Amino acid sequence: MDDVKIFAPASVANVGPGFDVLGFALEGIGDIVKARRVTGKGVRLTHIHNDGGRLPLDPAKNTASVAAQQVLEKLGIRGEGIELELEKGLPLNSGLGSSGASAAAGAYAALKLFGNGQNKEEALEACVKAEGVASGFHADNVAPALLGGVVLIRSYTPLDFIRIPFSASVYVTLVKPDIEIRTRQAREALPRKVPLAGLVKNTGNVAALVSGFFLNDPATIGKAIDDCLIEPVRQKLIPGFREAKQAAIEAGCLGCSIAGSGPSVFALSESKKTAKAIGEAMRSAFTAKGLGATKIVSCISSFGARSM
Amino acid sequence: MDDVKIFAPASVANVGPGFDVLGFALEGIGDIVKARRVTGKGVRLTHIHNDGGRLPLDPAKNTASVAAQQVLEKLGIRGEGIELELEKGLPLNSGLGSSGASAAAGAYAALKLFGNGQNKEEALEACVKAEGVASGFHADNVAPALLGGVVLIRSYTPLDFIRIPFSASVYVTLVKPDIEIRTRQAREALPRKVPLAGLVKNTGNVAALVSGFFLNDPATIGKAIDDCLIEPVRQKLIPGFREAKQAAIEAGCLGCSIAGSGPSVFALSESKKTAKAIGEAMRSAFTAKGLGATKIVSCISSFGARSM
Repeated sequence: MDDVKIFAPASVANVGPGFDVLGFALEGIGDIVKARRVTGKGVRLTHIHNDGGRLPLDPAKNTASVAAQQVLEKLGIRGEGIELELEKGLPLNSGLGSSGASAAAGAYAALKLFGNGQNKEEALEACVKAEGVASGFHADNVAPALLGGVVLIRSYTPLDFIRIPFSASVYVTLVKPDIEIRTRQAREALPRKVPLAGLVKNTGNVAALVSGFFLNDPATIGKAIDDCLIEPVRQKLIPGFREAKQAAIEAGCLGCSIAGSGPSVFALSESKKTAKAIGEAMRSAFTAKGLGATKIVSCISSFGARSM
Repeated sequence: MDDVKIFAPASVANVGPGFDVLGFALEGIGDIVKARRVTGKGVRLTHIHNDGGRLPLDPAKNTASVAAQQVLEKLGIRGEGIELELEKGLPLNSGLGSSGASAAAGAYAALKLFGNGQNKEEALEACVKAEGVASGFHADNVAPALLGGVVLIRSYTPLDFIRIPFSASVYVTLVKPDIEIRTRQAREALPRKVPLAGLVKNTGNVAALVSGFFLNDPATIGKAIDDCLIEPVRQKLIPGFREAKQAAIEAGCLGCSIAGSGPSVFALSESKKTAKAIGEAMRSAFTAKGLGATKIVSCISSFGARSM
């Protein structure tokens, strides 16, 4: 195979009480990487589209190219390289796993071009390293962006993950107020220690959340999206978050929290109609705070990075 | 029904990273409550056997009678009461849910005598209140003692739990060194705050542990029994714990940690032969520290409180 076109989806990480450990892939939005084999070592990034000129073309600084390079190194490829073109399909610093989608697309492109039957899971470590370039060492965006579905990161050292089977249809309303939050900035806002009582609440809820996915039970999933530790701190970076969440609850969501490190807010529901109403209600709540906001209705997708 | 004889099993709570949220019932060891309807209000405790005279006969101070009383109040029973006899089948302050087993047996006895088709789950709140009398407000012993199997406590206010389906056969080796630890004492040893990095590790592992149960995958269960927050603190109360755990690992256990608040140590394995070898290895480790120890091989039981 000499050239490939790969799509990798946006994702919601830090799902409720699953800070740094739980994420899921979204349907319909994501990044596209076009890649071709070239002679000469390493990865070159030729174009980035739709980023408003904000992302670096330096291949050492973009997650797509870093991930592709990591895969080449893992596969021991020498004397050949990759030329990449990246088409951003989701906004930067939105909390929707933009850098993770690029990393997953870049890694999978390299695997398709040079891999010899290796499966996707073998590219995860490369994606995690690449994500570290952009927004610190975390895997709960790149793992679902690469693999699809709901992914739990059990451990970082060594990297160990579990793909959580989930087949119920759950809609995801995403509302992004018109501000940007860098993941690093959102991390700096976090406390270094948390109360023991909060540990008990969050471990109970994260275990219940995973149970809800295994049971295909949207009600359990919804009530377990209850994070008493990270959300209360990070919501301060998102003007109008509390009002938007309240609006989502009143509009009938199952559960609502910050997507990744924000500022996007996600809410789950069981019908498309409710999902749309939630989006409208949340957008109005942000508007009432003088903040523009865009909304998307998506769903949890079983599919991760894939050929187009 | 005028009299009943109820058995409720011992249990392992605080399973690995599941501090205060995850417990499972054990096979073959537990407490027995004999109960009969009597005229006159309230619950009387006539005898306690096999406790070495250490437990109070005051019905307001024993978890079996408090739980039974709570059930009577919940059912709105007036003018009739219960006479209870309690036969302890497991050691006090061992970490094996002794007070929880008594509470579950007492509550279920009352439900059998006066309930009108109510199911066991409705007695859980009564058990939790009773457990509060003995060892503080926690539900991860009483819930499996009453309901059997693996139970996750999602939330305490309101009380909300999930029965985790699990059908693989896993052996549980329990070794109790000859010391006693009161649950209150073990709680006082805990820090009031824990590091954020530890939160991430424990939420990842507790979610993986529950996943392992859903997947009926002993290997995942074993590696997820990895608690970086509570075990390192509480092991200081158990001389020889580290050596015993190391011995269990060398003898081939899947995972090993403190049972409840200790001093008992539990280790999981996939065969009875390994389970026995683990018991011998752990006992030797304690003996080498000058501490006698008793061992039991049990398994995770699907059954909770039941008529005999």
